[in-house]
Amino acid sequence: MAHNVTQKIIAAHLVSGELQAGSPISIRIDQTLTQDATGTMAYLQFEALGLPKVRTELSVSYVDHNMLQSGFENADDHRFLQSFAAKYGIHFSRPGNGICHQVHLERFSKPGRTLLGSDSHTPTSGGAGMLAIGAGGLDIALAMGGLAFNLNMPQVIGVKLTGRLQPFVSAKDIILEVLRRKTVKGGVGKVFEYFGPGVASLSVPARSTITNMGAELGATTSVFPSDAVTRAYLKAQGREADWSEWVADAGASYDEVLEIDLDTLEPLIACPHSPDNVKTVREVAGTPVAQVAIGSCTNSSYTDLMTVSAMLKGKVVAEGVSLGISPGSRQVMEMVTQDGGLLNFIGAGARILESACGPCIGMGFAPPSEGVSIRSFNRNFYGRSGTKNAAVYLASPETCAACALTGVITDPRDLGMAPIQVDLPGQFLVDDRMIVAPAGEPEKVEVLRGPNIAKLPVNHAAPDEIRGSVLIRLGDDITTDHIMPAGAKVLPLRSNLPAISEYVFHVVDESFPSRAKSSGGGFIVAGHNYGQGSSREHAALAPRYLGVKAVLVQSFARIHLANLINFGILPLTFVNAADYEKMQAGDELALDIRGLGLGKTLLLQDLSQGIEIAVQPQLASERDLELIRKGGALSWASEQLEKTA
Amino acid sequence: MAHNVTQKIIAAHLVSGELQAGSPISIRIDQTLTQDATGTMAYLQFEALGLPKVRTELSVSYVDHNMLQSGFENADDHRFLQSFAAKYGIHFSRPGNGICHQVHLERFSKPGRTLLGSDSHTPTSGGAGMLAIGAGGLDIALAMGGLAFNLNMPQVIGVKLTGRLQPFVSAKDIILEVLRRKTVKGGVGKVFEYFGPGVASLSVPARSTITNMGAELGATTSVFPSDAVTRAYLKAQGREADWSEWVADAGASYDEVLEIDLDTLEPLIACPHSPDNVKTVREVAGTPVAQVAIGSCTNSSYTDLMTVSAMLKGKVVAEGVSLGISPGSRQVMEMVTQDGGLLNFIGAGARILESACGPCIGMGFAPPSEGVSIRSFNRNFYGRSGTKNAAVYLASPETCAACALTGVITDPRDLGMAPIQVDLPGQFLVDDRMIVAPAGEPEKVEVLRGPNIAKLPVNHAAPDEIRGSVLIRLGDDITTDHIMPAGAKVLPLRSNLPAISEYVFHVVDESFPSRAKSSGGGFIVAGHNYGQGSSREHAALAPRYLGVKAVLVQSFARIHLANLINFGILPLTFVNAADYEKMQAGDELALDIRGLGLGKTLLLQDLSQGIEIAVQPQLASERDLELIRKGGALSWASEQLEKTA
Repeated sequence: MAHNVTQKIIAAHLVSGELQAGSPISIRIDQTLTQDATGTMAYLQFEALGLPKVRTELSVSYVDHNMLQSGFENADDHRFLQSFAAKYGIHFSRPGNGICHQVHLERFSKPGRTLLGSDSHTPTSGGAGMLAIGAGGLDIALAMGGLAFNLNMPQVIGVKLTGRLQPFVSAKDIILEVLRRKTVKGGVGKVFEYFGPGVASLSVPARSTITNMGAELGATTSVFPSDAVTRAYLKAQGREADWSEWVADAGASYDEVLEIDLDTLEPLIACPHSPDNVKTVREVAGTPVAQVAIGSCTNSSYTDLMTVSAMLKGKVVAEGVSLGISPGSRQVMEMVTQDGGLLNFIGAGARILESACGPCIGMGFAPPSEGVSIRSFNRNFYGRSGTKNAAVYLASPETCAACALTGVITDPRDLGMAPIQVDLPGQFLVDDRMIVAPAGEPEKVEVLRGPNIAKLPVNHAAPDEIRGSVLIRLGDDITTDHIMPAGAKVLPLRSNLPAISEYVFHVVDESFPSRAKSSGGGFIVAGHNYGQGSSREHAALAPRYLGVKAVLVQSFARIHLANLINFGILPLTFVNAADYEKMQAGDELALDIRGLGLGKTLLLQDLSQGIEIAVQPQLASERDLELIRKGGALSWASEQLEKTA
Repeated sequence: MAHNVTQKIIAAHLVSGELQAGSPISIRIDQTLTQDATGTMAYLQFEALGLPKVRTELSVSYVDHNMLQSGFENADDHRFLQSFAAKYGIHFSRPGNGICHQVHLERFSKPGRTLLGSDSHTPTSGGAGMLAIGAGGLDIALAMGGLAFNLNMPQVIGVKLTGRLQPFVSAKDIILEVLRRKTVKGGVGKVFEYFGPGVASLSVPARSTITNMGAELGATTSVFPSDAVTRAYLKAQGREADWSEWVADAGASYDEVLEIDLDTLEPLIACPHSPDNVKTVREVAGTPVAQVAIGSCTNSSYTDLMTVSAMLKGKVVAEGVSLGISPGSRQVMEMVTQDGGLLNFIGAGARILESACGPCIGMGFAPPSEGVSIRSFNRNFYGRSGTKNAAVYLASPETCAACALTGVITDPRDLGMAPIQVDLPGQFLVDDRMIVAPAGEPEKVEVLRGPNIAKLPVNHAAPDEIRGSVLIRLGDDITTDHIMPAGAKVLPLRSNLPAISEYVFHVVDESFPSRAKSSGGGFIVAGHNYGQGSSREHAALAPRYLGVKAVLVQSFARIHLANLINFGILPLTFVNAADYEKMQAGDELALDIRGLGLGKTLLLQDLSQGIEIAVQPQLASERDLELIRKGGALSWASEQLEKTA
């Protein structure tokens, strides 16, 4: 049977299940990546498995999130990660070496392989023909232990690209167009696979901008074929040997096809506070801008920055604008410097930020009060920038540069500049000296733990009945930034569960943690697409720590659903959507879960209102059931490993 | 009579008093500078004076401290400062343009002129023959209002330099040698004036490293002559017209002379936790290093960074070391990039931080727990790095580079490298586009105030009797970092007195603010050199806000003493040093101040112990007396301005 690229890669890695969309499958994971904000917890979990060494082809530990170092916490975490990597067979990318996704794409991406990463933007490497999936840290720990990754076989949406991007229109505009059409809920349970004649005109970094921000669709991942363009990219990275061809079979089909005509696509912009709130740049042109930020794992490649550099050359940023530029990797920084790009930035008055996630996760460069910030990033969730009432817009690097120059939102085509053509280098500057290989004598390595590395929480088996009140009642599209904020104050606490739990729902309801603790835990109720955004498992771990026992919503985002199950929080959906309207914050609930089984609905008692509500546990497999019964995945996984030992 | 340089400049600016060491004088201020952490308060105070425009030759507002932007506060402050500068005739150096002292030296320093800056390292411009003095923000506000600056005529210590620095020994080692000999208390009431045959071999940036860190001596300022070297520097900055010659008259004398033989000077290092805890590098060589930071207003010039760059070229930082580099200004960053220096840094794996104060004030890049950090900075006070138990050492850029390469404390001479000679450029890259001139139509400018800009506190006239308990009893050398910490958490609150006051004495006693408030205020008791370090007036403002009414110590640091008086806190010293031992924390005190007068001692009642203690109010002039009586300088200054109107 003719397969598309997604199906081919999954077929080559299938451990159990069938290529039947929606049915549970498990796949072998070749590579893993972690970043520092999710990595400390993931490695503590891997350690709990008791293995001497990772069992993957390649595992890489990156440092890119917690780089402000406002206290001892960040540097302690970096030291822990470096020593842990040395001991357990993991490569360690030192702080300053760049953003995990950009570096992984450059140095480790491999067509046709699977990559599981504890960061939702792991699909970036899909631009090089990998099946690259974001997941919670515990899933990465299990994959490092050699266990298969469980998911539902995704539907495959074919995105057919025709034509060719016009001047000042770029890859970001393609993914913004997909988001405009499909929304942040449109990708749940799906892989977006790009094909068609327009694909060949997109470089690998451009493709990776698209697969990266495909995460905002809620998709399982996004993928491009591995073709001659991929080969040329890997060759330029000195890795032609890593290339293999992965293209859809003739006659392969898709569950749905979207078509985008690149010839007519124009500069787009996502308005506050959602990546799918997309308009044309000209629709919002003229809005005064306080700051512009260029970088992030979405748009910080050599091509992106050299294009911006050409636009800024000899000019200076508008008087009211602060422009920050964060190069995606040490390779990008070095080449942009070598080729004169950095001089143009400095000359234009840009602030050169570190090669790191930086402002994208609220790690510095927060806008002024009510300030408009135009960013080449992938997320503009409420409060994520560090300034609650800021208005954050997402756009291409070209649009960002235009805004920086004029001081108002500006379509880059309206600057009257000659078209800019930046070609990928035939040979990248390759220098892996900041990537530390695992130790030759791991038994001699001591894992260094600062006081910021707290102990893992203990799992408790589920009781027969779940009781508690509705602690909070929320609407649609609640992100993991709502549930467990990131940013400069909170992210350094990622290794310290008691401390970080005090910030759960901080941006929507600061009293949540004290209420949850004082009432002995309870239920969260919300609408559609609950838990969209980041892969952070702390959005499950911390509520669990506060006593949250079940989450009842209209629908879940994929990674967050898996995280809830991994930490023994029962995920429930309404059988009758209208019941959502009935439930009130403060209602006392009781749920008998002795009848928990695959596909079985349960009856939730609303004791305050004296009504019953049918709910559907979102558990797809016997494994999921086991996890909920045992109160989490860690003890389950240890048993699995004993079986395979 | 033959005058030294200090006396000449003071004579040319004398408004009242005589050139008699120790006697009160007032001098005309030509230029002022502020940075953002002290500037917001200084400008609010200037605004309270009711003038339409500054009355100085030149006033510049810099942004270099609060650049992390972890929340809305920093960017709000920047916006306030920019709009304020435009309206009131002040030049504004935009964020990213560099550290105030480095930029001021490059673009505005003027031999023979006076500069008053709300930052203790303002003496940096003394390297170009200015009389450049650090002071509290209120003093800068008054100077901007055209009022003279009050001080005691300093003693002038002549530092005679002979010989020539040997390879890998540099300006930092000269000031470390002065600190080793004179200690952090040795400069109170003194100006350090450099002379002798060794002076001609030092470039202006090298001289400025010395005058900058002369602040650590507690000195009023430090100054070099303005000579042919100064002329060449200003010419290379396109400012030869700003040059004039200022050298000591033949036969000029000094109150004391120190001699330093540059031929035999070797690499030195200040060990934790004081800039005068100086040893030779070889004495502490071999100590493992966790991080190295190069930059700050002390050592971030073109020459410094190009020297480090040459040492790092082709090598990579040791595996356990994180190396951060903060260029001193946009000019330095641009030229170092242009001349290949930056490529060497990136290649070596250095982390490129913003052109700002950064790690020097605990604004990011905090070391790991108990980590050793080697820094080219000027202060290693306890807790200042952001990591309480870190061990911070201060050394030259050359020593820093050597430590980064080997991973242990290393004398750069022991690397076996060929000597490195970096010449100053004949022509600096001059581009002032990031310095915004005052608005042409100031009446049309609106001053933009975010919610972080709190109102000025109100002054209350002093009562007849001061009563209260000893809230805290401290030892010698208490710094303003002890009294009012800086760092990433606290500095953003500089415009918000109620919020920042909660951090007074945070590093030594977290319960101080609540104790002070609950007991209705009281006294602080301490030993020698109380208030050394930064010029931050918040170290007086915030204790005053908490109810501190008097500070009783063995001796004061100059700027802090002035700040106490400016905000109506009575500064007292023990008449009998031994009485310090008698006083206990918690003692109830009463002090009748109706007899307050110049030179008069007072009798302090220790009600708890039933004893009397003779105390000396540290008030040098009728003006000081007035300030204490009125509860602060602001209302006094308004009256003065009305008289001169």
